[in-house]
Amino acid sequence: GKAPESTDYANYFCTYAFLYHQKDMLEDHKRTGAYFQAVMQNRRQFSGKVVLDVGTGSGILAIFAARAGARKVYAVEATSMAQHARKLVQHNGLAGVVEVIQGTVETVSLPEKVDVIISEWMGYFLLRESMLDSVLVARDRFLKPGGSLFPSHARLYLAPMRSTHAHHRKAEFQGSMEGWAGFTQDMRQYYGVDMGCLNEEYRREQQEYFLETSAWADVHPSQLLGSPACFMRYDLLTVTLEELAAPLKAEFRMDVLDSGPVDGFVGYFDVQFRGSPENPTDYEVLLSTAPDPTGATHWGQQTFTLNPVLEVTAGDAVVGEITVVRKKENHRLMEVTVAHRVVGASPAAATAGHLRISRYHIE
Amino acid sequence: GKAPESTDYANYFCTYAFLYHQKDMLEDHKRTGAYFQAVMQNRRQFSGKVVLDVGTGSGILAIFAARAGARKVYAVEATSMAQHARKLVQHNGLAGVVEVIQGTVETVSLPEKVDVIISEWMGYFLLRESMLDSVLVARDRFLKPGGSLFPSHARLYLAPMRSTHAHHRKAEFQGSMEGWAGFTQDMRQYYGVDMGCLNEEYRREQQEYFLETSAWADVHPSQLLGSPACFMRYDLLTVTLEELAAPLKAEFRMDVLDSGPVDGFVGYFDVQFRGSPENPTDYEVLLSTAPDPTGATHWGQQTFTLNPVLEVTAGDAVVGEITVVRKKENHRLMEVTVAHRVVGASPAAATAGHLRISRYHIE
Ligand SMILES: Nc1ncnc2c1ncn2[C@@H]1O[C@H](CSCC[C@H](N)C(=O)O)[C@@H](O)[C@H]1O
Ligand SMILES: Nc1ncnc2c1ncn2[C@@H]1O[C@H](CSCC[C@H](N)C(=O)O)[C@@H](O)[C@H]1O
Repeated sequence: GKAPESTDYANYFCTYAFLYHQKDMLEDHKRTGAYFQAVMQNRRQFSGKVVLDVGTGSGILAIFAARAGARKVYAVEATSMAQHARKLVQHNGLAGVVEVIQGTVETVSLPEKVDVIISEWMGYFLLRESMLDSVLVARDRFLKPGGSLFPSHARLYLAPMRSTHAHHRKAEFQGSMEGWAGFTQDMRQYYGVDMGCLNEEYRREQQEYFLETSAWADVHPSQLLGSPACFMRYDLLTVTLEELAAPLKAEFRMDVLDSGPVDGFVGYFDVQFRGSPENPTDYEVLLSTAPDPTGATHWGQQTFTLNPVLEVTAGDAVVGEITVVRKKENHRLMEVTVAHRVVGASPAAATAGHLRISRYHIE
Repeated sequence: GKAPESTDYANYFCTYAFLYHQKDMLEDHKRTGAYFQAVMQNRRQFSGKVVLDVGTGSGILAIFAARAGARKVYAVEATSMAQHARKLVQHNGLAGVVEVIQGTVETVSLPEKVDVIISEWMGYFLLRESMLDSVLVARDRFLKPGGSLFPSHARLYLAPMRSTHAHHRKAEFQGSMEGWAGFTQDMRQYYGVDMGCLNEEYRREQQEYFLETSAWADVHPSQLLGSPACFMRYDLLTVTLEELAAPLKAEFRMDVLDSGPVDGFVGYFDVQFRGSPENPTDYEVLLSTAPDPTGATHWGQQTFTLNPVLEVTAGDAVVGEITVVRKKENHRLMEVTVAHRVVGASPAAATAGHLRISRYHIE
């Protein structure tokens, strides 16, 4: 297998070559435990089967599959982490079953087709990293007809939230602009250079950074002011690379349950392990990254703050359209647009009823 | 001019495209003030001259040169910061003198040769970023015979220091190893996977990160236990690209002035503005990043911690050889090796007198 293209390596793959980072993912037990259950409680799906683990990292999912009775597991990993995975597999007595292959799944060759593809490919807000592309390439290259994907389905959600984080970011933004004002004063006084002509450029840059970039957060369910809208569902067996590469455009409706100012939206995802239509799982596992009183997975949720806030009243609804587009400069990052307005009978709906469009970067 | 090669852009150039980062450098007034003085107190060097600013960033040094009376300033900048520079130049009434060109200095063409090249190219420990290469390319392509470089000379230093930071890093390293022990226990208990075979790999990785990577620090002069060794001097007018690309190997001797354990070495640099032999500056400016009771420049110093510490007695000397090599994967980062031993009549010198070799990454 060929090494990843060099920019992509610099931007994306290099962190995965550290055990420290693999450990971070492994010790997210909601995550690792969900895969463990999905495999170990569905051994019938794995027993005697040929499995491909796309992006095996430490080798953990390949080991689960082998323990569940797979006849053969191909564990493909782009980075040098493959060497640690190989050692782990040997040390756990599974070298006869698991074959670790270093390379990208786009370029390696396998001696046979597989019954099951397992992969933990999800990024922030599901789509960041665009690693699902690689799983679909693997599916199209290597999965037998009737074979199944673990996970098999994914969903995206958006909900209105209350959050002090939004205020903090606004304060930080204002602090940064005050810093700039002092700075331009110093530059004039010390060096006779007037930098005022760049005020707007600096504001634009800082606004993007502080207000128009989504942030990781561990949102508590009590912060939700309304019901989450499930705005996108993927059937991983049938979605195409072209569909994934195209802009995601979806309508949403979030019913408001509590009155108050909406500080922003919280976005998150879940994935389901349902096997394939020909071979459904016996026990269906759900890995959810929804706001959870017991704490977030390592993905947390992504928050998109509103500026100014949106006033809503219980009984209203926030409706609109969300667009998720890959960045031209880096297809692993995204731009999100949320066009939204408040509908309902309340006075708030009347004043907040015009369409607002908010844009965010997912970095 | 061609855009920088894509990996290099992802790794290196992209941060310079933000005003926020340019501001960080500009408001380091030891830095910006040194260039201001070097130019404004040597107007004779600039008056009526043609100047090239390599990596103009915000355009600041080009503006200084124009204010000092340059006939023409070519201000070359690789990133889109060039657009802000152009606006700043216009707004400050210097559009007739300063021409901002977006591109790398390796690839742009200029209509004439220049009398002076000014550039702020220094990275951590002077050499990180390897931007001096670009200045030398510019010198060889564009500087008239007898022309001068601002700055014209650079020096590197190493000194023995006392530092609680070294203890902190060791504690963090130990904490990280304890974290790993707990983690492997959980992995065994939860999933029946034994990760013990990767203990040594994890230790290696964390050791590199915590103990064998140099760190930014604002060292106070009172932390120095001995006299700094100036182990390298560059005459920027004559040093060649080949010399820069080759490993730097230099001997050093640091006289110990205070007894005690040496927790590590502190490395730093200075640059001098001396003009050229044909055209020396009237007023020689020094920009130093040495430990300073009034606080560090944005470069701070680089600290290289020792593990275990080195016991020394006043009157001893620490002697040895330092090697600085560029990383194969990324020529803008380096690896530093410090081979050292204690010499002198004291008992400490007798026990610590064997050669020790410490290796570090500059990231
Ligand atoms: N196209 C590709 N080919 C091979 N490996 C890939 C890949 N894209 C991403 N990866 C790898 O996929 C891994 C995703 S992280 C998941 C690691 C492991 N399966 C676990 O669940 O703990 C990373 O190690 C990354 O390097
Ligand atoms: N090879 C090259 N060609 C053109 N610009 C370069 C370059 N290498 C680095 N640069 C630019 O050089 C700048 C160095 S930072 C210094 C900025 C400015 N001269 C000041 O003193 O404040 C960055 O903006 C970087 O983008």
